[in-house]
Amino acid sequence: MSKVATGHYFEDFHVGMQLPHATPRTLTEGDVALYTALTGSRFAQHCAVPFARGNGLPAMPIDDLLAFHVVFGKSVPDISLNAVANLGYADGRFLDLVYPGETLSAQSEVIGLKETSSGKTGIVYVRTRGFKNATTPVLDPVLDYVRWVMVKKRDPAAPAPAPVVPELPAVVDAARLARPTSLGRLAIDPARSGSPFFFEDYEVGERIDHVDGATVTDAEHRMATRLYQNTARVHFDDHREKGGRLGATIVYGGVVISLARALSFNGLGNLLHLLAINAGTHANPCIGGDTVYAWSQVLDKADLDEDCGALRLRLVATRNRPCADFPSRDDDGRHLPCVLLDLDYWGLMPKRAACVSK
Amino acid sequence: MSKVATGHYFEDFHVGMQLPHATPRTLTEGDVALYTALTGSRFAQHCAVPFARGNGLPAMPIDDLLAFHVVFGKSVPDISLNAVANLGYADGRFLDLVYPGETLSAQSEVIGLKETSSGKTGIVYVRTRGFKNATTPVLDPVLDYVRWVMVKKRDPAAPAPAPVVPELPAVVDAARLARPTSLGRLAIDPARSGSPFFFEDYEVGERIDHVDGATVTDAEHRMATRLYQNTARVHFDDHREKGGRLGATIVYGGVVISLARALSFNGLGNLLHLLAINAGTHANPCIGGDTVYAWSQVLDKADLDEDCGALRLRLVATRNRPCADFPSRDDDGRHLPCVLLDLDYWGLMPKRAACVSK
Amino acid sequence: MSKVATGHYFEDFHVGMQLPHATPRTLTEGDVALYTALTGSRFAQHCAVPFARGNGLPAMPIDDLLAFHVVFGKSVPDISLNAVANLGYADGRFLDLVYPGETLSAQSEVIGLKETSSGKTGIVYVRTRGFKNATTPVLDPVLDYVRWVMVKKRDPAAPAPAPVVPELPAVVDAARLARPTSLGRLAIDPARSGSPFFFEDYEVGERIDHVDGATVTDAEHRMATRLYQNTARVHFDDHREKGGRLGATIVYGGVVISLARALSFNGLGNLLHLLAINAGTHANPCIGGDTVYAWSQVLDKADLDEDCGALRLRLVATRNRPCADFPSRDDDGRHLPCVLLDLDYWGLMPKRAACVSK
Repeated sequence: MSKVATGHYFEDFHVGMQLPHATPRTLTEGDVALYTALTGSRFAQHCAVPFARGNGLPAMPIDDLLAFHVVFGKSVPDISLNAVANLGYADGRFLDLVYPGETLSAQSEVIGLKETSSGKTGIVYVRTRGFKNATTPVLDPVLDYVRWVMVKKRDPAAPAPAPVVPELPAVVDAARLARPTSLGRLAIDPARSGSPFFFEDYEVGERIDHVDGATVTDAEHRMATRLYQNTARVHFDDHREKGGRLGATIVYGGVVISLARALSFNGLGNLLHLLAINAGTHANPCIGGDTVYAWSQVLDKADLDEDCGALRLRLVATRNRPCADFPSRDDDGRHLPCVLLDLDYWGLMPKRAACVSK
Repeated sequence: MSKVATGHYFEDFHVGMQLPHATPRTLTEGDVALYTALTGSRFAQHCAVPFARGNGLPAMPIDDLLAFHVVFGKSVPDISLNAVANLGYADGRFLDLVYPGETLSAQSEVIGLKETSSGKTGIVYVRTRGFKNATTPVLDPVLDYVRWVMVKKRDPAAPAPAPVVPELPAVVDAARLARPTSLGRLAIDPARSGSPFFFEDYEVGERIDHVDGATVTDAEHRMATRLYQNTARVHFDDHREKGGRLGATIVYGGVVISLARALSFNGLGNLLHLLAINAGTHANPCIGGDTVYAWSQVLDKADLDEDCGALRLRLVATRNRPCADFPSRDDDGRHLPCVLLDLDYWGLMPKRAACVSK
Repeated sequence: MSKVATGHYFEDFHVGMQLPHATPRTLTEGDVALYTALTGSRFAQHCAVPFARGNGLPAMPIDDLLAFHVVFGKSVPDISLNAVANLGYADGRFLDLVYPGETLSAQSEVIGLKETSSGKTGIVYVRTRGFKNATTPVLDPVLDYVRWVMVKKRDPAAPAPAPVVPELPAVVDAARLARPTSLGRLAIDPARSGSPFFFEDYEVGERIDHVDGATVTDAEHRMATRLYQNTARVHFDDHREKGGRLGATIVYGGVVISLARALSFNGLGNLLHLLAINAGTHANPCIGGDTVYAWSQVLDKADLDEDCGALRLRLVATRNRPCADFPSRDDDGRHLPCVLLDLDYWGLMPKRAACVSK
């Protein structure tokens, strides 16, 4: 029997299958420093202990996306090692903050299967759950999302399973958004957070060009992807990929999400936390040397509490294309070739009531 | 109103203006490890807890330059986002050591303004102060320096302010140098510190070629600059800069300072701390791929205490040019094109009385 | 007297010479995060506190190779700054686990000397020892190995010393392998460790292609090498090396060892710790841009305890050459040009008795 894991193929999955993922991961201040160095994120809740404590937190939580990428990374060897494409995300929710010293583990459940018309691949729908503090008898859920991927069949002649396509919400209902339980009364000093804009200042439909660009090199995207322990080969092996479709390794889509979120600080500086991922598409591949730009649009607003609300945001990232004119889709509704990411999410935005000036 | 910060232009500043800077930053062991990996610094005070404790410190302090770069980085969005050039430093003092777990914040005061003859830009002089432990009612000053930058006018027709040029000392007077208060009696084992040379061994006028070279890649200088949360665009956006003056992103000057200081270990291995920055010029731009070399000259010596003194040093860094012949200026007094940095600083050097051999 | 260390030359060494190395180094969670980001290692003992505690450890130990590289790095300024080649390793043993917060120091003893026939260089044999917790009166040995390097003579006319070539074991005898004392009863959940294979599943002679490739860029190998505070010039100075033999800086051999060990997770996922280095050769140089592949062969097995044994493994790393056919040597017994590393080591592998399923 071969000692080497080669991942699951389409015919290896069945609906209801539970896949506990390997290698729990204790997050530390070291991971936080690398996340800062690799993304340039400046959201104050993840930069300064006093700022986090000022909002009632016991310590400085790690970035929600760092937790997301680590959970995602765990799922790769079992779900997407033989994937052709990562097709989409839905129904994602951030359920609890993660602190340095806590350990993340992950498990996925197959919730849908559908062979493609070619007969050579199939779409696998999984709900992946991240937990923390893996030693306690009851695991504490941290985040939870659905993604679907196109996976190769090992044997094109293998029979197609009965198609099961899960019903997924187009948007996470605002009533299901959870304000992090450890968050106390918010107290945001705009001179410290870096933004004078609060929930009331954003209007549905409003678009924001985040102006700055961030070039990503091979060294940087690979260090990030290894930090997340994502093992997908297409990110790491120049020798193999230089003969492939792109002629280069592809940047893990999560690296683009994190760069775009970091760029969005300039315009959304008080958006403290991610609450939900409604939908997401990696529209085109990003490779080393590309410069990432981003813009956001406010899609919706929802009241959460007396001191904060939720903004539903569309975050679009592009490659080598500044976003002053908000590039997105062509006349046929297809994403432009410059578009890397089209992400629909809910984030927590403090209200003016949370504003303090010192 | 635009949500996106675009920084101040020359006519936005007035003398006496106070600018509290955003995003306090808690420094951690993660930042220390990255600083080591990105600079190669080997000064034992910042490498080993037992060494630091042997000198009376409660813990291993972070590198003085890491603190400097973080404070500098905070000031960029408010001071130099629209700068054409960073012209100089003066009257900088390191006032206290910073330890992992402490939080830095920064504030600047405009102390001078002078429109340039072109009428399109002006020189802004600021004194920037870094503080630690932002939650306490009284902030603890960590460092303090003056820099002046040439900043664009938004509207070239805006009237020139009355010129105010601050009087700045050419050198920080040795009487104003502060031995870090937490430093106890020094006990330096040369076999551990890596250098057998003490205060008495250095002579005024002496020059030291630091011999080694350090090539800096785009990935490395950008990771460092993001670690310091310096947001100046010119460091990050290849797409924009490839059409610019250099055809490449420029390396943050502080990266060069840190590389040169790390190279200077070979020759100045016992120089435990920076005490003051007298003057400094980024003479020419550094870009990814350049190899940095450095040399030092002892400009002055001052007695500090029974176990240590201060060396006033000139630190010159070059690009792609070894320093065996101490390259510096041409016959007209202009810096040679290979010179990146010309820095004049005071550092703390133990005396022979501090030497212990185990 | 020059302030700049230029390293020892062949005629500076004598048999019995003790060389205490400079700059003790406190390892932290920051170093661990960087090691993960730079190598992609996923061995669960070094990734998750609960996993390590489940095996009786008080905390999550740092990777054995991270400790090795730091100890090796300390020895470079005194042993190999003027080395032409790092010829081999023997009789290496890992004696204790290292935890974040502990401080490593190192010392070498010259155990052999032999001038080469050219008269311009000589071979220096040293035993290097790594210790932890440098402040305590009695140092705790962490690892111990012999290496030999070819070192330049300062003066080719210097007389040759009487040749002393130490007798070194071809293999560390299994009776000398030390199970880490802090290791309690092992409890390995294969769903967490990432591998279902235990000691009993491996057969002597068995070969494993580790399948994946890892491209190493200049930024990555230099960050790793600086993290280890290895100061050998050939890794850092593009300006000098572009005119050298390779036309590029050479990757520190330890970077290749770590990448190969990380790749070997796929096939040897439960190999918790390194116990000994029997022999090792850096067969050919690796440069930035190379993609590293690896394969392993089980050379021997030894019983250690009721819940674990030792596997003697050969780990071969190649450049730009997948390892499905286990490339190694040509018909004349010479390493193929694609072979970077040929390492012979003992590792600790849990038995089936240690397997728990949750």
